[in-house]
Amino acid sequence: MDNTLYRVEEDSIGEKKVPKEAYYGVQSLRAKENFNITGQKLSSDLINSIAEIKKAAAITNVEVKELDSTIGEAIIKACDDIINGKFHDQFIVDPIQGGAGTSTNMNANEVIANIALEYLGEEKGNYKIVNPNDHVNMGQSTNDVYPSCGKITVLKLIIKAIKKLEDLDKALSDKAEEFSDVIKMGRTQLEDAVPITLGQEFHAYSSAIKRDITRFKNALNEIKVLNLGGTAIGTGINADIDYVNKVVPNLSKISGLDVVQADDLIDSTQNLDSYVMVSGVIKSCAVSLSKMSNDLRLMNSGPRTGFGEINLPPRQNGSSIMPGKVNPVIPEVVNQVAFNIIGNDVTITMAAEAGQLELNAFEPILFHNLFESLNTLTNAITTFIDNCIVGIVANREESRRLVDHSIGMITAINPYVGYDVAAKIAKEALVTGKSIKELILRDNLIPEDELDEILDPYKMLKPGIIGKNNG
Amino acid sequence: MDNTLYRVEEDSIGEKKVPKEAYYGVQSLRAKENFNITGQKLSSDLINSIAEIKKAAAITNVEVKELDSTIGEAIIKACDDIINGKFHDQFIVDPIQGGAGTSTNMNANEVIANIALEYLGEEKGNYKIVNPNDHVNMGQSTNDVYPSCGKITVLKLIIKAIKKLEDLDKALSDKAEEFSDVIKMGRTQLEDAVPITLGQEFHAYSSAIKRDITRFKNALNEIKVLNLGGTAIGTGINADIDYVNKVVPNLSKISGLDVVQADDLIDSTQNLDSYVMVSGVIKSCAVSLSKMSNDLRLMNSGPRTGFGEINLPPRQNGSSIMPGKVNPVIPEVVNQVAFNIIGNDVTITMAAEAGQLELNAFEPILFHNLFESLNTLTNAITTFIDNCIVGIVANREESRRLVDHSIGMITAINPYVGYDVAAKIAKEALVTGKSIKELILRDNLIPEDELDEILDPYKMLKPGIIGKNNG
Amino acid sequence: MDNTLYRVEEDSIGEKKVPKEAYYGVQSLRAKENFNITGQKLSSDLINSIAEIKKAAAITNVEVKELDSTIGEAIIKACDDIINGKFHDQFIVDPIQGGAGTSTNMNANEVIANIALEYLGEEKGNYKIVNPNDHVNMGQSTNDVYPSCGKITVLKLIIKAIKKLEDLDKALSDKAEEFSDVIKMGRTQLEDAVPITLGQEFHAYSSAIKRDITRFKNALNEIKVLNLGGTAIGTGINADIDYVNKVVPNLSKISGLDVVQADDLIDSTQNLDSYVMVSGVIKSCAVSLSKMSNDLRLMNSGPRTGFGEINLPPRQNGSSIMPGKVNPVIPEVVNQVAFNIIGNDVTITMAAEAGQLELNAFEPILFHNLFESLNTLTNAITTFIDNCIVGIVANREESRRLVDHSIGMITAINPYVGYDVAAKIAKEALVTGKSIKELILRDNLIPEDELDEILDPYKMLKPGIIGKNNG
Amino acid sequence: MDNTLYRVEEDSIGEKKVPKEAYYGVQSLRAKENFNITGQKLSSDLINSIAEIKKAAAITNVEVKELDSTIGEAIIKACDDIINGKFHDQFIVDPIQGGAGTSTNMNANEVIANIALEYLGEEKGNYKIVNPNDHVNMGQSTNDVYPSCGKITVLKLIIKAIKKLEDLDKALSDKAEEFSDVIKMGRTQLEDAVPITLGQEFHAYSSAIKRDITRFKNALNEIKVLNLGGTAIGTGINADIDYVNKVVPNLSKISGLDVVQADDLIDSTQNLDSYVMVSGVIKSCAVSLSKMSNDLRLMNSGPRTGFGEINLPPRQNGSSIMPGKVNPVIPEVVNQVAFNIIGNDVTITMAAEAGQLELNAFEPILFHNLFESLNTLTNAITTFIDNCIVGIVANREESRRLVDHSIGMITAINPYVGYDVAAKIAKEALVTGKSIKELILRDNLIPEDELDEILDPYKMLKPGIIGKNNG
Repeated sequence: MDNTLYRVEEDSIGEKKVPKEAYYGVQSLRAKENFNITGQKLSSDLINSIAEIKKAAAITNVEVKELDSTIGEAIIKACDDIINGKFHDQFIVDPIQGGAGTSTNMNANEVIANIALEYLGEEKGNYKIVNPNDHVNMGQSTNDVYPSCGKITVLKLIIKAIKKLEDLDKALSDKAEEFSDVIKMGRTQLEDAVPITLGQEFHAYSSAIKRDITRFKNALNEIKVLNLGGTAIGTGINADIDYVNKVVPNLSKISGLDVVQADDLIDSTQNLDSYVMVSGVIKSCAVSLSKMSNDLRLMNSGPRTGFGEINLPPRQNGSSIMPGKVNPVIPEVVNQVAFNIIGNDVTITMAAEAGQLELNAFEPILFHNLFESLNTLTNAITTFIDNCIVGIVANREESRRLVDHSIGMITAINPYVGYDVAAKIAKEALVTGKSIKELILRDNLIPEDELDEILDPYKMLKPGIIGKNNG
Repeated sequence: MDNTLYRVEEDSIGEKKVPKEAYYGVQSLRAKENFNITGQKLSSDLINSIAEIKKAAAITNVEVKELDSTIGEAIIKACDDIINGKFHDQFIVDPIQGGAGTSTNMNANEVIANIALEYLGEEKGNYKIVNPNDHVNMGQSTNDVYPSCGKITVLKLIIKAIKKLEDLDKALSDKAEEFSDVIKMGRTQLEDAVPITLGQEFHAYSSAIKRDITRFKNALNEIKVLNLGGTAIGTGINADIDYVNKVVPNLSKISGLDVVQADDLIDSTQNLDSYVMVSGVIKSCAVSLSKMSNDLRLMNSGPRTGFGEINLPPRQNGSSIMPGKVNPVIPEVVNQVAFNIIGNDVTITMAAEAGQLELNAFEPILFHNLFESLNTLTNAITTFIDNCIVGIVANREESRRLVDHSIGMITAINPYVGYDVAAKIAKEALVTGKSIKELILRDNLIPEDELDEILDPYKMLKPGIIGKNNG
Repeated sequence: MDNTLYRVEEDSIGEKKVPKEAYYGVQSLRAKENFNITGQKLSSDLINSIAEIKKAAAITNVEVKELDSTIGEAIIKACDDIINGKFHDQFIVDPIQGGAGTSTNMNANEVIANIALEYLGEEKGNYKIVNPNDHVNMGQSTNDVYPSCGKITVLKLIIKAIKKLEDLDKALSDKAEEFSDVIKMGRTQLEDAVPITLGQEFHAYSSAIKRDITRFKNALNEIKVLNLGGTAIGTGINADIDYVNKVVPNLSKISGLDVVQADDLIDSTQNLDSYVMVSGVIKSCAVSLSKMSNDLRLMNSGPRTGFGEINLPPRQNGSSIMPGKVNPVIPEVVNQVAFNIIGNDVTITMAAEAGQLELNAFEPILFHNLFESLNTLTNAITTFIDNCIVGIVANREESRRLVDHSIGMITAINPYVGYDVAAKIAKEALVTGKSIKELILRDNLIPEDELDEILDPYKMLKPGIIGKNNG
Repeated sequence: MDNTLYRVEEDSIGEKKVPKEAYYGVQSLRAKENFNITGQKLSSDLINSIAEIKKAAAITNVEVKELDSTIGEAIIKACDDIINGKFHDQFIVDPIQGGAGTSTNMNANEVIANIALEYLGEEKGNYKIVNPNDHVNMGQSTNDVYPSCGKITVLKLIIKAIKKLEDLDKALSDKAEEFSDVIKMGRTQLEDAVPITLGQEFHAYSSAIKRDITRFKNALNEIKVLNLGGTAIGTGINADIDYVNKVVPNLSKISGLDVVQADDLIDSTQNLDSYVMVSGVIKSCAVSLSKMSNDLRLMNSGPRTGFGEINLPPRQNGSSIMPGKVNPVIPEVVNQVAFNIIGNDVTITMAAEAGQLELNAFEPILFHNLFESLNTLTNAITTFIDNCIVGIVANREESRRLVDHSIGMITAINPYVGYDVAAKIAKEALVTGKSIKELILRDNLIPEDELDEILDPYKMLKPGIIGKNNG
């Protein structure tokens, strides 16, 4: 062995060569070998979150005089480096890993210890000076660090998602205003129903998004609850009592996040139901986005043989063979993100359900999927707003033409002639091609001037019996 | 045709014979033929809810003078009969149906019309006097009645579920108290970790259930929002404006439920995301119940070759071949209900996602699954409490024996000797069978009197460094 | 206690009153109390299957001289009664139950024992003469009876499903033939693409259904493998060796089903992956049916403001408020059955995954969902064929009009002018409303006679470069 | 603009600057901007597959004399470069994309065109010489290229998975042999049942894996069917008829894969049910692996307070706080991969269901999930074999001790004393701690010598009534 290239580290399993320039150590290396699963890297957000936790722990341990302040300072500087985006390439473990996140935690502990060692002018690997377990992990366990780390990452991602949902709400509301006078045919079960405006439709979309925003904000109340301080199983064994009381407030200060310590640390260590709830909230949002995308694709269908009520902004060539084809590519990607979120929800649910006794060992896959759900949701909304919603154009004339061409206005005469008579007229109109008005007048059912008011589609847009009190 | 047995009814499709004694009519019959899918009946809760809505509509229509009060009174009496449990056998349509619930709504309209006709001394089927559409369905559409009917049914079922969850919380908390001094080995990843009490474990379960209760209560805020008054597509066409304003408050009075009318009736008619959210809440609860059941089955495993820490109450013979076998049948059924709820959530999600434009045609399957999820959840919790939780007995001696037999206490010496030294001792203890204490004393790592305190499992149950400040 | 109304039975838990006229016994009663979950009954198919197994076991036990032939004959007659549809009301346990199916098995054992006792002129409950465990369950365990019972039920249901799929294939193929000359616009991503015939579309549907048929037939090879003879855990303890060898062939004879005994009875007792595979096959079929239903609803959309290419047969009034509205209710119910099957698949998967060591305790919910998936699939296909597919009418003129109105024929000129030039023409045509032909001639790109051939939509229906070799 | 850094390309949307050194072009760039969703790259397998298809197309187009052979040769060389792993960094589009894969196809067309241009000594971007659409995409459409590309990628990944499954089967079978004499307690529902050997358990695992292998092999028959040649919607418009007939055989030669052209190209273009079926097969496999992992974690539980029947090989430190703790990290990662596959299956299902008319626009997310499922399955199996299965050690003495300590042998006396008597003895033994044997002898139920044989656990491992005919 060439010891200019490698250093030797040792753990319970035995010795192992580690590349000399590496900041990670033996335990990270073993994990990398054990878990060659996705080929992906840990999420940067997760890495930053764990560095924040390690920093809060070091600060607190120094405060309560469990940790030597020189070592503590070095650890804190190391954490800051990571938070500032350095050393992320030293996180080598696969996001999907056995061991309940121990590998991620130890990867962080090792990297931080070795950066700290450098700050102290020591060689990497000299864990007698700064020990990944005894110093960096002091007062902690993977079992409180990793869950807390997941929680604050999710917090940050939800906050980002809320911001984008608010932008989307705004964009949809603007369109609701812009399209408030665009009358068109309402359809139920894809069949011609009664008139509506395109603005009312966009208003409905924004109403749905407002519910999503409320739900995400409510979800923060659960997600902000951390088990940090609970150590191995939530009983807090080996954590200095003052540390336990101070570490979460310190983390709150460092991260700028509104986080609190759980009342029941044991529950908070073993139960992942809050993530299932959050994933359910994400999923509800995905469902509304997907439904909205489906609608936009329908209304945009054509240009000549579909509904043709709106034009989505052209974003790219639609086909490698069909010239001039423009496809609804942005709604389509939103649909796909929604489908993926819905699948992720099942994975998250199964992972949460599989917890046993004092711990859930399946958080890595849960986090992996939850982070993906939140990130792709936010990214999808971003492109949805910028590359689709704001550029939508209404085909006013065509929409109005379809209203006039339809027989949906028949519904408005129900209060005057009864459902059964109206149904017969509707049927005859469809078969013969005659207009509703013509048939009603032929049968002397309603005087013409009254009828003209009753059949005015613009009167049909709000509650009330036309000709009586919808005025 | 023997017209002593049948009457003839007619709709847009044509004429059809209806059994003379039937309160349902032609449209119900057609639906029954079209949708022979599950062989199940509509839920009684749903039938009652629709009758409450029809009653509220009739009262309101009389109030606003759209409906003749004699006919109105007859309709109200008919609704009361249904609410009191009569005529439920006249609801003949399959719960899974096409048509967005029109068949359920028309089944109700027809049954109510025919009961009302009897109250008025008229023959069934004489719809000129009381018409299913024009009178019973006055100011309504399937598209506001059916969704509202689903909402209030879900409201009622959630209220029942909350009640049972509160009972469960109480039962678990009582057990937490009862078992507060039962020390046992905590396990993470099924491997021996550090001590805990059985009481702490049950307390954690109750903490999880408290979250479920909070979530369900929050969910009521969304579910109480009805689109009643929106008629066909939420624009409220054909509904008298005063009716629209009064019908939901009237429904609230009649049903005793806290319900409100949606601000955006169009959104509320077409978007089913609130059900996805509720299903997510149910699913989060199911996950916690399933995890708890898994734990109970593990702790109960044995009696001789498993964990053997608790005894679940024997409820029935466990085997048709193995004498004396007692199985954890109640947790097992809770697990299965949880699996079913998780599957239902996917169905509910897909149904909600599939809505198009002004309506979601797939509410029937959504309701069917959502009602099943809530009903089976409540039923499962009931048997879980009564036939399992309250009767659980702790095996105190065996649990204590396992603690003493384990080497999990090694963790407590970390702060004194460091992780690496502790790890070596642990390894040697496991291989040689020697005790932790013996090895530490041999190596003169910690004085014996101090060590005895450090290794006291009862000291390990709360935060703090033993021998320093966990006291 | 009034012993004219009740008899007393006893099991390991203690004594219990059983209604005197009941054929079920103490164990069924306990199960009914423990599992009040769905309020539903066991599937009749399952009840018949278990009776067939009990009959096969009794016949075999008599053959190998383990069972007295008088008792055996009585048991066989009792089984025949059940197979003939009698006594199904005596199966009182909930389909969702803990205990791995023990309650269903014991319900069967008790009912059969008591019927047999009556045949022997004995009182019900006199289990010294005919014992539910020692005689009816002889050589068996719930753990081989219940899984085998599920397997043969699934076998029967698959055979039914295949039959209906063959009918559907026929109906679709007939329509493919009928519509072979109905030209229409093909659409990709809901956007106008290139011409196709309605017949080609129906042919594609039938091609998909043929794959389903093949998959279901292949699945039979796995489902026909039974663990009967394996008793408690697959080792076959307590089953006479000759019985073990003969019971499955006897069952095959009795049931008329092609069933075989598993080579590895231990595997076959504990692993439920074959059901996951079958559910995957059902789900694949559901996906194709749902996609097809979505297409039909799209093509049927209108009548005036949608695609309007086909008319589905009207089956019932479409609306309680909109006169004359006819909705695609049959495809809608097919969609919903598909969503339900997809959710059931998740439940089935989770139940299968949750098996532990020698047994999977979660078969009851798995069977419940799998039977539902198969039954509703078959029922949905039945109404799909009878009430939808066979009555579909093509709107030939409107479809042709849309083709002529579109600019999709532009694709055919690619080989002559290149993609980029064609794209520019397409764009100009859309913006200006000018025809493709007009623009090409204006730019002298292709001579008119040649162009007429190239733009003939009927030439675009099969492979080849038009004007060169697609003829 | 600095035209030493950029070149300008143009498409239907307009002009755009492309980095001068880039091999991708304007359409790739637009797609990158539209779809910033996952931050991940296209799978290398997918990139290679598309290059193989482009190569097959070029070869065939030259053969049928549609493509100039000089250009064709350059295209073929470009494809070979990609197949050899070059230029993969030029594939810049997000795997999750709208547009049904058009962006992936155009990214490939552009990269290949530009490489080919270099081979011809031309400048990149000079598409008059080699055009991405007219030359590279000749006779093709995204709608046949992309689906075919997904199919052959899945083919390759299944073949890899089968290889690993065969290795796993071998490893399990070896262990079955090694452990064939390790007697242990069988458990059903986690409760002590009757004896089994550890070898029988591993044999059962290998039996399950054999089913997976068979299913994957069968699945190849569906996956090998390509729609290449169908172009835009399966009608084959614009593809030379000879090209259509030759391109798939050429692809088969180039790729070495057994692929065939679909009989119904229209069906094959629009229906993705075969992927749902394959995902179901993957999921069935995942379920078996997860169940196996759960078992191993249970049997390995301890070391002192669990089942302790086996030792999994220690792979890494188990805890950052608990010294000496070794966790079942490999089975845990297998569980997580299984959960992820199950979630992916839902996404795949929804994507397949969402297809409309002539195309399914949602293949990108389907492929993304399906590739992930297959890759992670194969990777998980690899570490499962190497780092877990082959190193499992049986705790023979402890397993035997548990058998002797249990009362599970009681089952064997059923045939001699009946179930009810046996049950009473079992109950008494459990309560009093007396042995089964002692109680039976006390009650003179079976002579001692006979009893010793009946209670011999080794006799209980195969079918038969002990003392009669299981010998």
